[in-house]
Amino acid sequence: MAGNSFGKLFKLTTFGESHGVAIGGVIDGCPSGIKLDFEAIQLEMDRRKPGQSDIVTQRKESDKVEFLSGIFEGQTTGTPIGFMIKNTNQKSNDYSHIKDVYRPSHADYTYDQKYGVRDYRGGGRSSARETACRVVAGAIAKQMLKDVKIYAYTSSVGDLFLEKPYQELEFSKIESNTVRCPDETIANQMIERIREIRKQGDTIGGTVTCVIQNLPVGLGEPVFDKLHAELGKAMLSINAVKGFEYGSGFCGAKMKGSDHNDQFNADGTTKTNLSGGIQGGISNGMDIYFRVAFKPVATLIQKQNTLDNKGNIVEMQGKGRHDPCVVPRAIPIVEAMAALVLADYQLLRKQESHN
Amino acid sequence: MAGNSFGKLFKLTTFGESHGVAIGGVIDGCPSGIKLDFEAIQLEMDRRKPGQSDIVTQRKESDKVEFLSGIFEGQTTGTPIGFMIKNTNQKSNDYSHIKDVYRPSHADYTYDQKYGVRDYRGGGRSSARETACRVVAGAIAKQMLKDVKIYAYTSSVGDLFLEKPYQELEFSKIESNTVRCPDETIANQMIERIREIRKQGDTIGGTVTCVIQNLPVGLGEPVFDKLHAELGKAMLSINAVKGFEYGSGFCGAKMKGSDHNDQFNADGTTKTNLSGGIQGGISNGMDIYFRVAFKPVATLIQKQNTLDNKGNIVEMQGKGRHDPCVVPRAIPIVEAMAALVLADYQLLRKQESHN
Amino acid sequence: MAGNSFGKLFKLTTFGESHGVAIGGVIDGCPSGIKLDFEAIQLEMDRRKPGQSDIVTQRKESDKVEFLSGIFEGQTTGTPIGFMIKNTNQKSNDYSHIKDVYRPSHADYTYDQKYGVRDYRGGGRSSARETACRVVAGAIAKQMLKDVKIYAYTSSVGDLFLEKPYQELEFSKIESNTVRCPDETIANQMIERIREIRKQGDTIGGTVTCVIQNLPVGLGEPVFDKLHAELGKAMLSINAVKGFEYGSGFCGAKMKGSDHNDQFNADGTTKTNLSGGIQGGISNGMDIYFRVAFKPVATLIQKQNTLDNKGNIVEMQGKGRHDPCVVPRAIPIVEAMAALVLADYQLLRKQESHN
Amino acid sequence: MAGNSFGKLFKLTTFGESHGVAIGGVIDGCPSGIKLDFEAIQLEMDRRKPGQSDIVTQRKESDKVEFLSGIFEGQTTGTPIGFMIKNTNQKSNDYSHIKDVYRPSHADYTYDQKYGVRDYRGGGRSSARETACRVVAGAIAKQMLKDVKIYAYTSSVGDLFLEKPYQELEFSKIESNTVRCPDETIANQMIERIREIRKQGDTIGGTVTCVIQNLPVGLGEPVFDKLHAELGKAMLSINAVKGFEYGSGFCGAKMKGSDHNDQFNADGTTKTNLSGGIQGGISNGMDIYFRVAFKPVATLIQKQNTLDNKGNIVEMQGKGRHDPCVVPRAIPIVEAMAALVLADYQLLRKQESHN
Repeated sequence: MAGNSFGKLFKLTTFGESHGVAIGGVIDGCPSGIKLDFEAIQLEMDRRKPGQSDIVTQRKESDKVEFLSGIFEGQTTGTPIGFMIKNTNQKSNDYSHIKDVYRPSHADYTYDQKYGVRDYRGGGRSSARETACRVVAGAIAKQMLKDVKIYAYTSSVGDLFLEKPYQELEFSKIESNTVRCPDETIANQMIERIREIRKQGDTIGGTVTCVIQNLPVGLGEPVFDKLHAELGKAMLSINAVKGFEYGSGFCGAKMKGSDHNDQFNADGTTKTNLSGGIQGGISNGMDIYFRVAFKPVATLIQKQNTLDNKGNIVEMQGKGRHDPCVVPRAIPIVEAMAALVLADYQLLRKQESHN
Repeated sequence: MAGNSFGKLFKLTTFGESHGVAIGGVIDGCPSGIKLDFEAIQLEMDRRKPGQSDIVTQRKESDKVEFLSGIFEGQTTGTPIGFMIKNTNQKSNDYSHIKDVYRPSHADYTYDQKYGVRDYRGGGRSSARETACRVVAGAIAKQMLKDVKIYAYTSSVGDLFLEKPYQELEFSKIESNTVRCPDETIANQMIERIREIRKQGDTIGGTVTCVIQNLPVGLGEPVFDKLHAELGKAMLSINAVKGFEYGSGFCGAKMKGSDHNDQFNADGTTKTNLSGGIQGGISNGMDIYFRVAFKPVATLIQKQNTLDNKGNIVEMQGKGRHDPCVVPRAIPIVEAMAALVLADYQLLRKQESHN
Repeated sequence: MAGNSFGKLFKLTTFGESHGVAIGGVIDGCPSGIKLDFEAIQLEMDRRKPGQSDIVTQRKESDKVEFLSGIFEGQTTGTPIGFMIKNTNQKSNDYSHIKDVYRPSHADYTYDQKYGVRDYRGGGRSSARETACRVVAGAIAKQMLKDVKIYAYTSSVGDLFLEKPYQELEFSKIESNTVRCPDETIANQMIERIREIRKQGDTIGGTVTCVIQNLPVGLGEPVFDKLHAELGKAMLSINAVKGFEYGSGFCGAKMKGSDHNDQFNADGTTKTNLSGGIQGGISNGMDIYFRVAFKPVATLIQKQNTLDNKGNIVEMQGKGRHDPCVVPRAIPIVEAMAALVLADYQLLRKQESHN
Repeated sequence: MAGNSFGKLFKLTTFGESHGVAIGGVIDGCPSGIKLDFEAIQLEMDRRKPGQSDIVTQRKESDKVEFLSGIFEGQTTGTPIGFMIKNTNQKSNDYSHIKDVYRPSHADYTYDQKYGVRDYRGGGRSSARETACRVVAGAIAKQMLKDVKIYAYTSSVGDLFLEKPYQELEFSKIESNTVRCPDETIANQMIERIREIRKQGDTIGGTVTCVIQNLPVGLGEPVFDKLHAELGKAMLSINAVKGFEYGSGFCGAKMKGSDHNDQFNADGTTKTNLSGGIQGGISNGMDIYFRVAFKPVATLIQKQNTLDNKGNIVEMQGKGRHDPCVVPRAIPIVEAMAALVLADYQLLRKQESHN
């Protein structure tokens, strides 16, 4: 109920504050018999971790995952997979300056109002560090999903847009640059833009596009738990996300039905795919694609006015090492959350038809 | 698991196909002691029902809700509220022409693939008729929420946009026209546009904006069940929805942090509200606002090619009485789903602090 | 949360008070493609219904189930199965004498304290009439379970015990007498005993034994959701149940390990079965058997002192038509709840191993 | 779904195998603002731990709990409480002799059949070591419950019964002897009996009685989640439990209604309490009491025939350090599970009445 679990049959529960002893999680419901590729898991962690390039935060975190249970002789046993990531390089005293103030557009104020107590060290539970646990679980989900391919990439930074449709992109190039945009020209512009923003002590928003291929027909539950509704919830649960659209999205709302309908081919595929691979909440075998909007990071290396817990407006000087743009590091998180949704629905799928 | 329930503490489970005996639902977890205003419930039903104006489907449905349990002497008893709406005016033979074919951009194909069997009468379970049950439950949730105000309205039809921010609108005018747009000039243009589209046998998309006022601070669960993530899922679960954004939304992804951050006033309110009333997944007491994109209805009164269940491409002539634009009738559904989310979080809120 | 649902993947939600418009339920998660035998469903209803013999209540209820959704052309579609049973023959005025009093050992007092309001007509939601909905769902679950056999029978009435182990009984004789005890001699004694008790205006308790055969190995989830823990919860949720034991049960607590351990045969079966077909919460392929204790019905046709809602002790004369012993009518309810547990675990079983 | 979580609002998820890196858990939903007494938590751990007396296993385990999150400056923050207990003194090579065999009346065979893989080191997930995590969570639940008192004690070992009703016992004496029976005479007989059994390399069963006092009226959800049904499930989920009864229990099934009904006093209390403090699944303010049956431990220090995973019957010599009787160490586990059930229902209680 308290919102720290995701999924039903493939269920992740996470715990941990950014400056506590450790963050971690439990994956309950992972089927037995999956031979885990631990390097692939760590690779996903490395894609998310701070300090990987000059356009992300230079904070040092090891992000080394320790598995505590549920794996024996290299394969999953069907029992819960407990894991943790120790908070080794966190200096709590970095945060004394925010102990009594609520940073603008952060969760400090709402946590304090809701719980009457707040772990003020670096965002506590609301820190994006929590997403490291999602990446661990998503990496395992990906291995369970086998042939399903999930590709996320940066599709805009500020007003710099990658206009090409995903069909014209080479996904193999996503990891070839630090901003994770598969078009080299736009990527370089984006990188340059982020560097400028960082110099200003400012931050900037962006969007991530995600494409899912090779998904079988029939995943997703109609009515309330439509596949795109769960994907939307999954994405909106990521820190800093402000919007989600799939298939034709907000553009589709401007269109006429005669232009929007996807005509069938004889094999059940469709000539166009404005539906985004989902009909009635259920995958139809075509590519799924969606777009996620991230706001600019709220932590600025600038002076800002803010509120303290006595009701005074005070000036605060941001410090520390923060991301000028979250989007490059959000790519593996978007993929992880998509993988968690799909793993859950794939397990649900197994028990739907009686024959 | 099978996706026919929504909510945790205030939980709605729905059942029913568009052309079966009845549709209905069970609300489990509604607190005892709410004196129900049955006229207010029926009023919400009437806002959703077909035939209410010339710009919606002329199909006749009574949409009269019958309560079966959970209410005694006019008030809720704390036991489950069972209800049903009989399918009186449904003519099953209307649908013989689609028995063996999969309509483009409908759920016919995916249901058949998923379940191996399909109730082909008018969309069956995937019909938007199911949303009538959501409106019943939402109307009760609204009564539980008391002072919280939820206003949805049509903010675009095709490329006709209501550009004014919600603060400049009079919500009392929403119901003054059939398209439910509170600006009379734009409303008339929208109505005209829908009439044209209907004459062409075509359909058109649109967007709905929803504003929530008087919500207390502290609703929403952090991490996976953020308030906006549940609102997003709720909206994306409505038939024909393709996108959701809240606060600054997709526009926020173009902005810089120094422009996007909401500065505090001394009382905890903020000078701007690009956050959309939510920080870290928790309501902060400011207005919540979000926008929902609806695709054009897939049923056209035109000839279209389609696929039959033998793998042949065949021509199909749409018939029947369908909405040229779903948005006007979607308004009460958007409000109902928002009310269900808020009711659930309001109950959860009661047990979070120990003192 | 509010306790009106049972099961996870095969999920029943019930609604309804004994003297409201109707009782009913929704089964969500029943797989598609099950060709339903409606006569078999009604047969189970008839085994539970009042008035079937002279040793049960002579109240008249039709107990005719109406299916509202989820079934098309005789088979399940994978969508929720809504159903209701109208309360035709209920006379509300029968209950005016209990409007202001709390009957001893009934739920009147606790409902009133919990909810602040009470549907005083005949027990309302706490009435055993609710179990009719369980029988409907259990009958469908039985059809899903195919070869699994579930046999419940009366194993004691008061201090009259059927001492024979279940292996020496012929289950085909259970329905050959009105008390549903497969041993004719004991059955006749039990029937005679119940008749005496009824003449005294009194009631008497009893036990039901249930045997499950042909269950595959591997059902049940370890740790908190052990197969016997769910069976126990299912049985304890039936009105009037005071205890549950399986396998060696309370007798096993007197034994030594060297006597209690079940030695294996080479094929994985065991020579003895004190374990009751379950090891570590998981079925081992042997017969499951358990015993359920029912208290005597609290409604007596005698004068009793009771409490009214003003805090006065007042004399009350029980009237109406009540069961002198619930056990004979509880047999199909025990079977139904067992079927619901097994159906749920059978669906869960499908997604546990990756290979 | 996979059964490693317990509770709804106060939810415990556990992970870990007896010989893995660590066991642990996550408590999600614990309210904020509880000042934790860490000594009280460790005290509960010490009551459960091996080696505490000569009548329990002499295995060495430190059972030192490390909290990883959810607690700040000594009090709960409302975020998930992650914790772990390292498996320091576990020698995996102790278990090579059981790698290929299924021990009689253990879960080895069923786990292997269910998952196709088994962590054969000392029972793995099915080991009672998992219950240490329940004791941690239960100790926190007890602190949340404040004035509610939960007393469990040994009420029988083999055929040695403590016949006195709980009202005649002094609960303060429970911890005065190693078998945790509050009657000194019987306690000494029980201890002597367990010593004999241990010398024989055998084991013996027993029962635990639990009494809950000072519980407010109104806890428990009617219909499927009755308070006693959840207590029953909680107890049956503990390793080795074969039966559960509350109030009059199995004896009640022999009684007549005129003897069994609890007559009211004017203040809503009852003169007798055969109901065991629960009516219609809801607490009525009287003492709750129940009894739990534990089978004899399956691990014997004797030769036994068993089955190997090739299908051969082979002789096995039990070794290691095991409990001759689980009951003394089960006392804190029974209390912990009761506390988890009550904490959950106490939180649920907060949102039931609207006024």
